[in-house]
Amino acid sequence: MSTSEKIVVKPEFIKQAEFIARGTEVLPDGIIGLATKLQESKENNKPLRIKLGMDPTRPDLHLGHTVVMRKLKEFQKLGHKIILIVGGATAMIGDPSGKSETRPSLTKEQVDFNAKTYFDQMSKVLDIQSAEIVNNADWLHKMQLNDLLKLASKVTVAQMMTREDFKKRYDEAKPISIHEFFYPLMQAYDSVVVDADIELGGTDQRFNILLGRDIQAAYGKESCQFAMLLPLLEGTDGVVKMSKSYPEHCISITEDPINMYGKLMSIPDNLISRYFMLLTDISTEELNNIEARLKTENPRDIKMKLAFEITKEYHNEQAAIMAQNEFVNVVQHKGVPSDVPEYKLDTPKNIVELLVELKFATSKGEAKRLIQQSAIKFENEKITDINTIISTQGVLQAGKRKFVKII
Amino acid sequence: MSTSEKIVVKPEFIKQAEFIARGTEVLPDGIIGLATKLQESKENNKPLRIKLGMDPTRPDLHLGHTVVMRKLKEFQKLGHKIILIVGGATAMIGDPSGKSETRPSLTKEQVDFNAKTYFDQMSKVLDIQSAEIVNNADWLHKMQLNDLLKLASKVTVAQMMTREDFKKRYDEAKPISIHEFFYPLMQAYDSVVVDADIELGGTDQRFNILLGRDIQAAYGKESCQFAMLLPLLEGTDGVVKMSKSYPEHCISITEDPINMYGKLMSIPDNLISRYFMLLTDISTEELNNIEARLKTENPRDIKMKLAFEITKEYHNEQAAIMAQNEFVNVVQHKGVPSDVPEYKLDTPKNIVELLVELKFATSKGEAKRLIQQSAIKFENEKITDINTIISTQGVLQAGKRKFVKII
Repeated sequence: MSTSEKIVVKPEFIKQAEFIARGTEVLPDGIIGLATKLQESKENNKPLRIKLGMDPTRPDLHLGHTVVMRKLKEFQKLGHKIILIVGGATAMIGDPSGKSETRPSLTKEQVDFNAKTYFDQMSKVLDIQSAEIVNNADWLHKMQLNDLLKLASKVTVAQMMTREDFKKRYDEAKPISIHEFFYPLMQAYDSVVVDADIELGGTDQRFNILLGRDIQAAYGKESCQFAMLLPLLEGTDGVVKMSKSYPEHCISITEDPINMYGKLMSIPDNLISRYFMLLTDISTEELNNIEARLKTENPRDIKMKLAFEITKEYHNEQAAIMAQNEFVNVVQHKGVPSDVPEYKLDTPKNIVELLVELKFATSKGEAKRLIQQSAIKFENEKITDINTIISTQGVLQAGKRKFVKII
Repeated sequence: MSTSEKIVVKPEFIKQAEFIARGTEVLPDGIIGLATKLQESKENNKPLRIKLGMDPTRPDLHLGHTVVMRKLKEFQKLGHKIILIVGGATAMIGDPSGKSETRPSLTKEQVDFNAKTYFDQMSKVLDIQSAEIVNNADWLHKMQLNDLLKLASKVTVAQMMTREDFKKRYDEAKPISIHEFFYPLMQAYDSVVVDADIELGGTDQRFNILLGRDIQAAYGKESCQFAMLLPLLEGTDGVVKMSKSYPEHCISITEDPINMYGKLMSIPDNLISRYFMLLTDISTEELNNIEARLKTENPRDIKMKLAFEITKEYHNEQAAIMAQNEFVNVVQHKGVPSDVPEYKLDTPKNIVELLVELKFATSKGEAKRLIQQSAIKFENEKITDINTIISTQGVLQAGKRKFVKII
């Protein structure tokens, strides 16, 4: 490695590395290692090859996914090459054990369709045209028995068992099928084929990406890939990771401006700085400035800047201004939005049933909870009785941002 | 299984099973299970498919190899089908870890040549013409990634770790490469492809053959294969297993009649009955009779019958008679063989160097040991001094059966 060769790393590359790696963990050699790779690349006029593997099974991207894409964009800005690997081999295999219903096998057409949807959405963040897009089915499906055994011979059982989930299951006497060893092996082999210098992934990819280093070395690469491990972005509740499974705390990148802005305004104050760091291009100096301001100013004002910036990025400035005005009007001035849908009430109806019918709640149970939590208002009066009957015209409101005009 | 179906097993099939399984272990259901399979086969007029996998890397067969071949021959006599699987896939892969020099990768031509040599030798014991001979390269090399992962998904890591050598190495923190898991998997998959009813192998094949049962079940076979585990035949010293690595205790099936007979006469008495059981067609009654005689008669006479029978089988009756006469003359009557090679001594020579030159010893060290063990005679006088110089004509003898006439 670079350090043993006594390369003097120039401050500009340290700065580049610090910016691009913020919020992440770089292995094995941290910021200095990354800075050295960046410097060597520049000096040799040889762009780094930045790998991201994608499982083309979930075509709806949310802000959580954009964390890694912003990193890719930063690498692109510095002139490096992005390699997007569609996991066609993995996706087409599905879960061969047949034990799980959650990962059905996909056809090539489905994989292609999902991948295209993925790239369309990614193009909102990075320059997808200049990325190298490959499908690992193109090489993995061509591997013969000998190739696979050669690959498998490079890793020991003990090494595999250092992967935390394997170790845990083995220790708990839960079954691990042999084929599961092949997922990390195939991902690692992808790094050989695309000749990756850096692989990005979530913290749960630590083992797989470091295995990629070992496998590259076993196949003769001299300077093997680094891992850049990205944190999971918390959802707007600030507790669990952002995920489609919790739609109310998840912000899709195709979310309309008003909802995007409003959801961003709902994050807890302690997430403001983190969202700025992981979801905007704000400089290190600005970020430090924001952190200082958060200690003295009203966090709401800084959060509005965050919501404005992100909404502007995924829509445009006008949409962001509109969303901000709407937010100020509805939430801060307790007003009713300018554009409230109407609902024709043919016959008097119990509030619980009505909430479900309006899809303000997904079940009667949830509707009752919302009422108990004082989240439901009719004509600006809280409804506290689940037996309330709605029979007149007026504005019904659930939470801060859901409105309907009963007519 | 049969027992749960309350099949009444007829005595004739019990007798067949007892004869064919003698000296072996049959899993999972022992003699009764085997008898049931034999009976069902007969009643359904559906010959059993008896599998033997062969690693075509050692073309010189010795009596140790014939133990399993005799079992195959017995199955053939009962009308069952022998399936010989040449391990072409395994052999061509060699040891992909590159850690061992002992199993070099073989080309297809080498595999074919070795296999042919194998079959030529096997035809001395069984009817090779009516056996089904296949090469697992024909299906294993055609497997695609998906097929291999499907196969691998049928077995868990914990299951693999019950194989003793894996468990031992894992516990001792010695490396097990992932590809090693594929050898038992491929062998097991062979059983699916050839639809085996019984697989024969050494006791070290217990795990692999039983895995074949599991894999057959996983691929939908109803009545899965039995394992018939054969003992390792001891070499003529009665201690370590017969192996080419100890040529002095190993009897090749192409060994000349005099050496074959002589080596058989050198086995310890406690092996006589075992050699009869594993290396001849002697009936159960005769075997019992021999065991009784061994307690009262001179074992040498019974051993001579053994040596005669085996020499006759691999050569012919005349050769066996000749070998027996030679043995009686040389060993019992301390005579010199009828046909001793001559060696022209140009100049007086030290006994140690001479023994090496004559190939009576493979090294000076061995030559010295032979002298110290009183195994060397010149003109019927023991040589005890390693500095002895041979300068006259006479018969030089090493051990019981090596002679040269110095002229």
